[in-house]
Amino acid sequence: MKRTIPKNALYAQSGGVSAVINASACGVIETARQARGRIGKVYAGRHGIVGALTEDLIDTGLESPETIRALRHTPGGAFGSARYKLSSIEKNRAQYERLIEVFRAHDIGYFFYNGGNDSMDTAHKVSEIGSQMGYPIVCIGIPKTVDNDLAHTDCCPGFGSAAKYVAVSTREAALDVASMARTSTKVFVLEVMGRHAGWLAAAAGLAAHRRGDAPHIILLPEIPFERERYLAKVQESVERHGHCVVVVSEGVRDTEGRFLAEAGSKDSFGHTQLGGVGPVIAQMTQTALGHKFHWAVADYLQRAGRHIASRVDVEQAYAVGKAAVQFALAGKNAVMPTIVRKSSSPYRWTIGEAPLAAVANTERKLPRHFITEDGFGITPACRRYLAPLIEGEDYPPYERGVPHYARLAGRPVRRRLRTPFTL
Amino acid sequence: MKRTIPKNALYAQSGGVSAVINASACGVIETARQARGRIGKVYAGRHGIVGALTEDLIDTGLESPETIRALRHTPGGAFGSARYKLSSIEKNRAQYERLIEVFRAHDIGYFFYNGGNDSMDTAHKVSEIGSQMGYPIVCIGIPKTVDNDLAHTDCCPGFGSAAKYVAVSTREAALDVASMARTSTKVFVLEVMGRHAGWLAAAAGLAAHRRGDAPHIILLPEIPFERERYLAKVQESVERHGHCVVVVSEGVRDTEGRFLAEAGSKDSFGHTQLGGVGPVIAQMTQTALGHKFHWAVADYLQRAGRHIASRVDVEQAYAVGKAAVQFALAGKNAVMPTIVRKSSSPYRWTIGEAPLAAVANTERKLPRHFITEDGFGITPACRRYLAPLIEGEDYPPYERGVPHYARLAGRPVRRRLRTPFTL
Repeated sequence: MKRTIPKNALYAQSGGVSAVINASACGVIETARQARGRIGKVYAGRHGIVGALTEDLIDTGLESPETIRALRHTPGGAFGSARYKLSSIEKNRAQYERLIEVFRAHDIGYFFYNGGNDSMDTAHKVSEIGSQMGYPIVCIGIPKTVDNDLAHTDCCPGFGSAAKYVAVSTREAALDVASMARTSTKVFVLEVMGRHAGWLAAAAGLAAHRRGDAPHIILLPEIPFERERYLAKVQESVERHGHCVVVVSEGVRDTEGRFLAEAGSKDSFGHTQLGGVGPVIAQMTQTALGHKFHWAVADYLQRAGRHIASRVDVEQAYAVGKAAVQFALAGKNAVMPTIVRKSSSPYRWTIGEAPLAAVANTERKLPRHFITEDGFGITPACRRYLAPLIEGEDYPPYERGVPHYARLAGRPVRRRLRTPFTL
Repeated sequence: MKRTIPKNALYAQSGGVSAVINASACGVIETARQARGRIGKVYAGRHGIVGALTEDLIDTGLESPETIRALRHTPGGAFGSARYKLSSIEKNRAQYERLIEVFRAHDIGYFFYNGGNDSMDTAHKVSEIGSQMGYPIVCIGIPKTVDNDLAHTDCCPGFGSAAKYVAVSTREAALDVASMARTSTKVFVLEVMGRHAGWLAAAAGLAAHRRGDAPHIILLPEIPFERERYLAKVQESVERHGHCVVVVSEGVRDTEGRFLAEAGSKDSFGHTQLGGVGPVIAQMTQTALGHKFHWAVADYLQRAGRHIASRVDVEQAYAVGKAAVQFALAGKNAVMPTIVRKSSSPYRWTIGEAPLAAVANTERKLPRHFITEDGFGITPACRRYLAPLIEGEDYPPYERGVPHYARLAGRPVRRRLRTPFTL
């Protein structure tokens, strides 16, 4: 009886990383290790798809079970990620052919691509081109984005932890400014991520448990910014509470659609690089109203803040990684595991699936009924949706006062192709 | 036999608050409650000395033991703080007399002032003026500052937790930028507090456990900033590690003593660059070297980050509050409890004392031998000093995904003076 040699797998991280993307990696690798005999080696692209294209692969089989387990509590992208979007097949077929060439050279039959909507598009195309080239490859997307803007899934792994970071930070900074307001700072502005969708800014609303609690104003990309209405709301809050806490999404635009903070530069996906709306808003407030202000820009701290990760988020990140491998073994292709909510209170969820073609390049914004009528806050419906996603803590182990995070050996797989590839 | 009615106590918070100043309040109040019969009521000034001057006092006796206990894990200033420095006695004697008048009206015999060096100066003066006015008052200072710049104490409660926040955040954000560096962000800049002393920026160095670990550059107020040397160091780090993590103190100055944050650099539209030194440094780096950057400004998040407080810091904050009351009961006056280090490894400490006159208005900077020769890092001696201060975690309880912090009733003490006081 002839025994089939199992195909190898390639796992790659893509786009902005998160506090729990490595938990998905852990789910993929641990599940694949349990399926020995059906899946061969698990390789990882060093810096995601860039490693795949340049044949720079890491053999995860050379990492100890303890190191792989530690990925579950390690933020960032342990294998390196990339902001590198493949062109359309029409424009640059060579890229896709190169990918298939690398897959063929390393006997890769499974491609697990862990990223946002751009990445789901890429995974979908790779699946199609493989068939066309006579090298069928199973492509499974694994959802990841702190922006929570993927369609067809109730939420995105990575979001819950960043959301928890934002809610906790808002609550803490609010206690600070409340202490100082009598003689000093009256307005505090926290800038959070969210280029097009206000999910993270909305999550700041979870800091409030009672009427009057901070944040007093949330500025969302979904609501065009009107200076006078905003300033009136700040003044009202200062008069009523003695201070005002503002949480602003980096993606806020004015009524003519211009970002309040244009950095001028664009990233490789052609998106404008944002950052700096926090100080713009704070300065505007002081100029108009005269209140002393402080501002913070959380930037990477919010999406790397594994020390304050949401337990629910960690569990879901692991679960989608695990499900990706199970889907592949079940013969599915060109799909992405999703989070399906069964109920909000008590919170119950399960894993579902969506075709990559449906997820690719779509974007889910905050629905209008999640935003209060005045545009400055979140509704009870939004709170019911968001609340379970930040539930529970999942503390990493500590060493000398700081979290002990995984350090990979990251040993390379021997190259088999003679042809170099230029990005 | 005549029983003496015990004098009341007044506790007030001063200056910028911290993650653990309320732990000191907890130490004061719990210790005073145990000394019933020797100390009467414990009042707190609403917004610190401002509450004392305006006779706006809170009766802490009306708070439950559970609420007082919860202060131990609650950041910010629970009674309100104030940035309000009393003038010299020569300039505004009326202020001091008013204080004594309020103390007399409420039978206050103990004044516990929880703050930095300005506050120690005030407490010292209050003690002197009380004697002069025939109303002797026991004045005990309680050290607090995230800046760690108080003299005569090995460290300052509040610093260890902010230091831990900075070290943890640096480690986490460094994993993020390392993931992104191949195709995107290569330079990450984190701005931390420290207007005059670089203790908090130095603490970022605790994120590194091995050679090459982030942060690669620490910019301290103690070292004048030289643009070309800095840029060369960034480039070296990017070439060696693929990326560069920079931690910059808000108080960094150029060789002519000007704050970099006030350098007045302009963006491409001719607008003066808003905000802090973090974005200034990041933009300067990109303009000169072309590397994509991200920056974060931690601001209040670092000093309010009770969720990631240092256990050692919490214990010391409580201990100085407790010691303040014990000192008062032991008949001491015009002193401040200090932290005395017995050994660094294993870390052992005890409570000492310093006269307020010695602590007042002094400032302790990072000594030169704590800074590497090139000025961009910390030495092993600095690491030995700092390491124990961020040891241990002390997690607050959580409710619906966010920390459950104390909410005081804050019931006012009935006014006894007919004269209002204008600040």
